[in-house]
Amino acid sequence: MLRKLIISVCAVLSVMTASAQNVRYVDASTLTVIGKPLPTTKAFTRIDTSVYKFNDGTIDKYASYSTGLAVLFSTDSRTIRARWTTGEDNSGSNMAAIGQKGLDLYIMKDGKWVFAGVGTPDMDTPPYDSHESTIVADMAEGQKQCLLYLPLFDKVDELQIGIEEGAAVSPLANPFRHKIVVKGSSITHGAAASRPGMSYPALIGRENDWYCINLGFSGKSRLEKEYAELLADIPDVDAFVFDTFSNPSSDVIYERFDSFVDIIRAAHPGVPMIFLQTERRETRNFSLSREDWESAKQTAAEEVVRRRMKTDKHIYFISSEGFLGDEHIATADGTHPTDLGFRYMVETISPKIRKILKKYGVR
Amino acid sequence: MLRKLIISVCAVLSVMTASAQNVRYVDASTLTVIGKPLPTTKAFTRIDTSVYKFNDGTIDKYASYSTGLAVLFSTDSRTIRARWTTGEDNSGSNMAAIGQKGLDLYIMKDGKWVFAGVGTPDMDTPPYDSHESTIVADMAEGQKQCLLYLPLFDKVDELQIGIEEGAAVSPLANPFRHKIVVKGSSITHGAAASRPGMSYPALIGRENDWYCINLGFSGKSRLEKEYAELLADIPDVDAFVFDTFSNPSSDVIYERFDSFVDIIRAAHPGVPMIFLQTERRETRNFSLSREDWESAKQTAAEEVVRRRMKTDKHIYFISSEGFLGDEHIATADGTHPTDLGFRYMVETISPKIRKILKKYGVR
Repeated sequence: MLRKLIISVCAVLSVMTASAQNVRYVDASTLTVIGKPLPTTKAFTRIDTSVYKFNDGTIDKYASYSTGLAVLFSTDSRTIRARWTTGEDNSGSNMAAIGQKGLDLYIMKDGKWVFAGVGTPDMDTPPYDSHESTIVADMAEGQKQCLLYLPLFDKVDELQIGIEEGAAVSPLANPFRHKIVVKGSSITHGAAASRPGMSYPALIGRENDWYCINLGFSGKSRLEKEYAELLADIPDVDAFVFDTFSNPSSDVIYERFDSFVDIIRAAHPGVPMIFLQTERRETRNFSLSREDWESAKQTAAEEVVRRRMKTDKHIYFISSEGFLGDEHIATADGTHPTDLGFRYMVETISPKIRKILKKYGVR
Repeated sequence: MLRKLIISVCAVLSVMTASAQNVRYVDASTLTVIGKPLPTTKAFTRIDTSVYKFNDGTIDKYASYSTGLAVLFSTDSRTIRARWTTGEDNSGSNMAAIGQKGLDLYIMKDGKWVFAGVGTPDMDTPPYDSHESTIVADMAEGQKQCLLYLPLFDKVDELQIGIEEGAAVSPLANPFRHKIVVKGSSITHGAAASRPGMSYPALIGRENDWYCINLGFSGKSRLEKEYAELLADIPDVDAFVFDTFSNPSSDVIYERFDSFVDIIRAAHPGVPMIFLQTERRETRNFSLSREDWESAKQTAAEEVVRRRMKTDKHIYFISSEGFLGDEHIATADGTHPTDLGFRYMVETISPKIRKILKKYGVR
């Protein structure tokens, strides 16, 4: 009883101490920032929007987000805090603020990245753009290797990592191997992911030690030429994974697919291009028009990819079967996978991608 | 191509038509409302707060929520819409608005409740208290049996179901058998559930055709006498499931457990009381103080229940093993299960509860 009281008091004091004066903040841009397809001038933006313009305000905004980015560092601090600024937007009705504008920390333990805590955004005080949070406190002594995912659906202008006064923090080399660029829709973007580390590219990356770059653009992934040109510019790509059939109509798929592939293939000869069919949406369960619209998309996707596979042996098709399990419960709104949906998706596609990449010496 | 265009145009017109003039609204309180432990004067409140008072503003507020309530109806309408009013609160950082103040529709298909669509709350216009949404449109002709879950984390003052002009809607008798009262914390309340039908009591209810009553009170489930008295008053209970060890400290568990059970047992002799140990929180992964605090709770939980089992053969203990899977990814924030966490939890506890209830003739 007394021991428990002492432990509780110590825990409270430890958090209080860390949250009061004895924290030293370090600009996260001086640490290792991973997840950008190409260099950017701003530290926490995934695409340099002064170089790549899309003539679409929403796409330009999404390009400036920190989606898929993570900070890697090593520290002996027993507490990890963060201060960061984001945009002012409130989250969408299908997403929680931690996924939208929060932080998600993993620490290496026995060779695996293990969840350590979240940076909780301040959603009490509009305009919800300035945040400060203890991510984890009261850890054991010793060096920790840290992987901190940044917000999925917001920009990050500033980010500072807080450690105990007297502790050290240093950049950690990117431990992920093989660059896999994932181009896609809101499903790739991670719209309804509970935390930034729960998007399927992040899950696949941690599971396989792959360096997955998240180029998900919610509702804005229609095989546009501008994206193909961006993908063509990315150096040293080991594989592309495409969730490019979720947003366009079947007509747009038939119309644009080949020229989209042409541009990327010209720049990346022999690089595997893996196309996901797009999930069978749960909005089809009862709506006849949704059923027609969505099944036409899935048919078009399979048709265009399989046709191209006849002349390009480095193109692959992954059917949507199993993407959302079989209970019809794995989306937040009929369309966007929840963490449950992402788990099902990874269970389905991860072994298939591994099998494909094995041929290319990627393990 | 032309066929697709016609289908798209028809779909758009159908939605436009439904959302414009040809909708008739019906007060949902004239249909079947399920999920209340006892009658209430207000239609969509789970507990009558004029009768049950808790001397705690937060508990009183949560008691007035529509958590776990659902509306059952039958209709031949091809479109289902809703208009509803809620409180003004914004959602917490770990929850999405659809779970907090949205609606979640299931329609009976081949003997199963299948997800049909969500009622999306309006989060664009503060104070976020008035909502109107198409839940599903363009369905096939014929009669549909509908189960519409109400918001998990808000009150509902008014709710109207919209159907096509000329269609009929009528109350549907409660098809769920056996009354199972689930008393618990935020985990039971469904804090980070993506949709109202994804809390674990709702999942277990649909899976087993059980009538589960959700008495989850986020952060406010500390074996209080007032709750025990409320549970004692509920008639015809077939079983109690308790998530009562998530909020209190180990000391409070030791102090209050027996008198909590005494009050309920006196009113419900021979009714199975099934205690869940409380999950192993992911906040323990690296924090030493959390590890001590949480493991003390889990130990206390097992001790008090197993001791009582020696003298009461209708008391059961379910260990937390498997509640959150084994990858440490199934919570939104280290504490609250996401839909993935709830799926793991149901996979673990549902067969165990079935096995216990079999002895009592509950199937």
